[in-house]
Order: sequence, then C-alpha cells, then structure tokens
Amino acid sequence: MDILLEGGVIAGVGKGLGGGGDEVDCRRLIAVPGLVNAHTHAAMWALRGLYDEGELMEWLRGVWEAEELLTPSLVYHASRAALAEMLMNGVTAVVDMYFHPLETARAAAELGVRLYTGPVFAGEASSEKLSKGESVLAALAEMGGVVGRIVSVHAPYTSQPELYREAARLAERHGALLATHASETRDEVYSVKERYGVFPVELLERQGFLRPYTSLVHLGWVTSWELRLIEESGATAVHCPSSNMKLATGGFVPLREMLDAGINVALGTDGPASNNSLDVFREMRMAVLLSRNNYWHTRVGARDALAMATVNGYRMLGLRGGAVRPGYLADIVLLDASSPRLRPLSPERLESHLVYSSCGCDVHTVIVGGRVVYSPEARQGLLAAIEEAEGHVVEALGRRGKNI
Amino acid sequence: MDILLEGGVIAGVGKGLGGGGDEVDCRRLIAVPGLVNAHTHAAMWALRGLYDEGELMEWLRGVWEAEELLTPSLVYHASRAALAEMLMNGVTAVVDMYFHPLETARAAAELGVRLYTGPVFAGEASSEKLSKGESVLAALAEMGGVVGRIVSVHAPYTSQPELYREAARLAERHGALLATHASETRDEVYSVKERYGVFPVELLERQGFLRPYTSLVHLGWVTSWELRLIEESGATAVHCPSSNMKLATGGFVPLREMLDAGINVALGTDGPASNNSLDVFREMRMAVLLSRNNYWHTRVGARDALAMATVNGYRMLGLRGGAVRPGYLADIVLLDASSPRLRPLSPERLESHLVYSSCGCDVHTVIVGGRVVYSPEARQGLLAAIEEAEGHVVEALGRRGKNI
Repeated sequence: MDILLEGGVIAGVGKGLGGGGDEVDCRRLIAVPGLVNAHTHAAMWALRGLYDEGELMEWLRGVWEAEELLTPSLVYHASRAALAEMLMNGVTAVVDMYFHPLETARAAAELGVRLYTGPVFAGEASSEKLSKGESVLAALAEMGGVVGRIVSVHAPYTSQPELYREAARLAERHGALLATHASETRDEVYSVKERYGVFPVELLERQGFLRPYTSLVHLGWVTSWELRLIEESGATAVHCPSSNMKLATGGFVPLREMLDAGINVALGTDGPASNNSLDVFREMRMAVLLSRNNYWHTRVGARDALAMATVNGYRMLGLRGGAVRPGYLADIVLLDASSPRLRPLSPERLESHLVYSSCGCDVHTVIVGGRVVYSPEARQGLLAAIEEAEGHVVEALGRRGKNI
Repeated sequence: MDILLEGGVIAGVGKGLGGGGDEVDCRRLIAVPGLVNAHTHAAMWALRGLYDEGELMEWLRGVWEAEELLTPSLVYHASRAALAEMLMNGVTAVVDMYFHPLETARAAAELGVRLYTGPVFAGEASSEKLSKGESVLAALAEMGGVVGRIVSVHAPYTSQPELYREAARLAERHGALLATHASETRDEVYSVKERYGVFPVELLERQGFLRPYTSLVHLGWVTSWELRLIEESGATAVHCPSSNMKLATGGFVPLREMLDAGINVALGTDGPASNNSLDVFREMRMAVLLSRNNYWHTRVGARDALAMATVNGYRMLGLRGGAVRPGYLADIVLLDASSPRLRPLSPERLESHLVYSSCGCDVHTVIVGGRVVYSPEARQGLLAAIEEAEGHVVEALGRRGKNI
C-alpha cells in the first residue's frame, strides 16, 4: 500500500501510487495518524522532577516561585527540549499555554511541529494586557507556517469574568482559538459559585467564551447541565488524565457522558511538571484505564482513545487531520513494526496495541504537513538540543524546590 | 563510581574497585536495581490485543475459550516472547501463574531472567492434582539456576477451601512460595461471604494459607480487618493497578493503609492480555497515580513506588535484592542516560524521572546474578524470538476472539 502526499495533504492511499517524488520506505513500519497534544505548558520541562509530591495548590506555590527564574531564553530552551521529546513521541500538533509564547513558537518553527500558542491572561481585564496580547498575536501571525494562534485565560478562580469576555473578543478579531483551565478542582467550583453564583462553565458561557474553537481543559468537577452548555456551543473538552491523577485533584471526568452527548473530547499531557511524561500514547491508555476505574465499566475503549488523540484534536484546531485518508493533512507517524510492544501483530490487534501497550518509543519517523521532521537520522540533533537545554536549566534552577 | 560484582552479588560500590574481571563501561548509563514483576501470566502474550473491551467475567469467558488452543509448545513460545519483552524493560525477576509451567521455566532459563513458577490449582482438592503438582515442583527443582518455585491457587471463588490448605502444605514441604488472586472483585467477596461466612482473606487465613512467603494478588475489595491478618502473617500484597483498571474491577486498593501497616507491597503487571503492557516502570507510575486519584491526596509518591517494584519484590521472594548496595544480589539495570524521558537530569530529580517519566524503553543493559543477560547486542536475538512466537500464535489463534 502506498500513501501519496502532495502539498501537505494526503493525496491518495492505495497500490501503485508512486508519484516520482521523495520516497520513504515503509515496509517495516506502520503508518498511523499524528497525535495531538491538546494541552501542555512545554517550558515547564525546566521544572520536571522538582515538585512531585504536593497537591495542586501546594504544587502551584512551588512552581510559581521557580517560574520567576525562567527568562525568555530559558523558556526557549526548555520549550525546544519538550517539543523535541513530543516530536520523538509522535506528536504532530501541540497546544501550549505559557508565558513568552514567541520563544516557544520559535522553537516549534525550528523543529517543524505544529504549535498553537499566544497570550495567556489572568487577573483583571486591562487595556494594557489586551494590547500586549494583540501584539503577541500579530507577531505570531507573521511567523505563520506551523505556528497557529490561541488566546488563553488561566482559570475562573484566578481571572475576572470581564477578562474572559475581552479574551473572547480578542480571539474573534484575530481568528485565534480560545482556551482555559476549567472545573479542575472542587475548591475552584466552590469559590466560583460563591463569588459569582454560577458554576465555572456557566460563567464562561455568560461571558461569551464558549465557542466552537474554545477548549476547556480538565473538567473533573463539571456538572451535567454544564455539559449541555459545552455541547451546544461546540467547544472541545480537553482531558488530561495523568495530570489530574498526579495532582490528586479528585473529581471524575464524565468521559462517557461527554462522548455520548457528542462533545468533542481531545487529550492533553498537561505540562511536564505535572504529568511528567510527554507521551500521548500513554495518555490514551490512561484515559481508558482511568475511565474504567472510575465508572466500574468498560464502556470507554481503545477506539475512543484513538479518536480523542487524533481526529478530535485536529477538529479542535479547525483542521482536517488525524486520519490516514485522502484529503486529510499529511501529519503521519510511522511506527517501528518490530517493536515488542506491538506483538503479536495482526490487523485486528493493532488498535489495542496502540492504546494499551505501545508508547512514544515505538515512533520511527514523523511527518508534519508532508515534511519529514523526525527520523532516526534526526535523533542525535534533537538529543543535543535537549542536552543544551539541560545545561541552562540545571545552572539556573540548581537544587531549587526539591520536595521529595 | 564503580560497582564490583562477585559470585552473583554486589561486592562493593565506590571508587577504584576494578577487580580485573569483565567490565561494562557505564559512563553514559545510570545503574538502578532490577525490577520485580511480582505477578503475571506470561504466556497470555498469545492473547494480547484480542479481548480488551470486556469486564472481568466477560473477559475470562473469552480467554478461557482461547486458552483451550494453547499447546505446551505455544506456551513456551508465548512465554519466551513475554519474558524477552520484560527483560528488555528491565525486569530481572518474574512471578508467573499459568499452566504448562515447565515450558515457561525453560524459556526463562534460556533467557537468564529469574522466574518463579509452579503448579496452579483450582476447584476441589484431589490427590491426583496434588501429586501432579509434586512432580512439577520436583522437575523445577532440578532446573535450578534462575528458576524458583511457587505453588498457586487460582482464587477463592474458583477453588475449594481445602485446596488452599493442601496447597500450603505442599509449598511448605517443597520450600516453595505461595500465591493466589484474592478480593479482586465485589462479586468474589459476596460469593465467598455467602458460601463460607467469611471474607476471602479471612478464609485464606483459616486454611493456613497466609505465610511470610505468600503473595495475595489484587486486594481491591479487601477490608481493614483483613489487612491486619495480612500484616500479622508477613504475607505480601501484590498490587496490579493497570490490570484492575483495565478490567474495571472497581474497588479501591488501600495502598496507603497497607504501607502504613507495614505490609510488604509489591507490583505486578498481571498478564499481557489484561494490562497489556509488560513494563514495571509504567506500573510504578500507575500505582502512584491511581492512589492519588482514589484518595484525593498525594501521600503515595515516587519513593514508595520504587520500593514496591524493587526491594519489596525481592523480599517477597525471600531474596536480598532490589538495591545497588554491597551484599545485595547483582540484579542491576543500566539505563541510557541520554533518554529524553530522564531529562533534565540531576541527582535530586532522578527518583521522580524513574517513576513518572521513564519507561522500559530507557533500559540499555540488564544484569541478573552478575551476568549480562540483555544488552544492545542481544536485542536482535530477542526480537527474533518474539517474531517466531508471533508466527506460531497468529497461525493457531487467527482472528479468534476479536471483540472490539
């Protein structure tokens, strides 16, 4: 079987499609759609392994302190390291939320991985904040290529309602996506209800923040009537199972109800300081296993997880991608078919292996927009970028923050 | 720093210990203790990827049907493939429970990985069963080397109380270990209580099955008073978080209470048809994350998981192993320090990376009893064994059992 790529898109899938262009020999490889990491904070790679034993608020206090040491240059290096690792793990598109977004965008452009980033707002709405956001969006628009734009608001418990309204307007003016953390903890739900008389997603809906291109991240404490608001708006729910578990945020992401309601659900690793893996294969497995643990039934399975990590992720980005089919973006991952994790290999076992057994280590080659951006030959270069980042990070942070 | 190995044991750790014997250059590697997979059914590798969408009893029905096709030769090949994969993942000791145990033992002896196996009983006690068990134990004793012996009883809901008593006597006579699944599902607890008037672990205690060398696998539905019985007996609790989650057995393994009570807790992957990964690194991460999800607190952490997967596992086997310290077994795993998953690397971040980020793919070399049993040079040979097994399995099982 051949896969013909033309102009960044899959032009055909079938036998004898050789078109005279560059060829990748896939005889010992398995082609699967590229994976979307629908929520992360890539530069928190710098903090990976330093704050692992605290619950969310305790963790945030440590992280916020350490983040004061992160210069734009450190954000560039740490982002580049994290994006390089994601690329090696078969991630073809990443949605990031962090400060110094232009640094992260520069790293993504160099690596050739799709990145959605932009201003991140918190606190009160101010014209200064918003105009700074405007200029970030303008600078990102100039970069183009693999770089896309998203306007983020941190969370309903750290950000004023008016800021949500202004952020939505800003995103609309610029044709950018929207994102926020929402309903991550019980405390958040209590404090929002107490302050504003409504639940977090209700608040977002009233501020005009729920749009078809909005992603709501976490939702471990969302209510059934808020699910209806999400469904009606066409917004995407981004599930980050590992991060929610590691930070002990409790709650229960109603994954089965979300899928049954027709809500678009995508998967995120969250940042490397709260996961700490940057492997969407692992996240697929975790989404299914966590659901089965919480529901005591097996009604979420491998096929659901694959959709969340691929086609649903691209849908959230407004892109036709996430499938190896004609007309879809040429974002393709080639897996090493000799991997022990993919055996015994037979067509009817493959979906299961991808979700329950495989991991990012099985990735051999990554193609984004028809361009080979990772292959075994590129490995040394990416490892060198990671080593360079490590040097900067260990020097700047030292033993800071160790709490084991 | 040098690690000096002599006679299968770590003789010294320090500078300048070169003893004139064989040397492994560890300059770009990280030495960690070998991992113990304290519960698996290796040959179920043949079924990996076929039955993934059913709850435990539905899953068992499919599995039991397919298992009728597993000949001794298939058990040998499938076990060898699974053990090879575990070895590549840094597992140095495996406890197996399956039929045709001599076939699995033969595979382990060839690979050089420690394996505990033996007869598996279910149903009623009979002198025929027991004498067949005797001869299996005698044959395993003759193999010696990396092969150790364990007597298993399937579960309190499939096995008569008298069988537990006889199995315990058999194990005692042969100096073998003991194992059983216990308190895996709510149904099991109900049916045992209804039939015998006691809870599963209480039943085992009355049958003299709780010994210092007994392992109780699963315990998702164990009560607080049963924990006291386990603690008093010195038995080991084997936690298989991924398997419990995937099969939606519900319940709540009281990991924090077990550790606080001083119970020895080890980790198992369970079989490759219910996990489906054979990676104890993943299981460490899962144990911590599942605990945090269920408790809503972070009081189980990386250090607990590392102990469960190493020193606690060896303690269950009656061996002094699981630490890179003089006097401990020379079961050592060397990780590739250049792995992206281990970065940024600094001494205070290492424990965290091992549990939350690393996986079996980071394993470079495995030493069991002072002997190098896996290294990059050995990879092709192990992959060939896996490929051979795949050929036999796919031919014998075909598309059987597919239920996605």
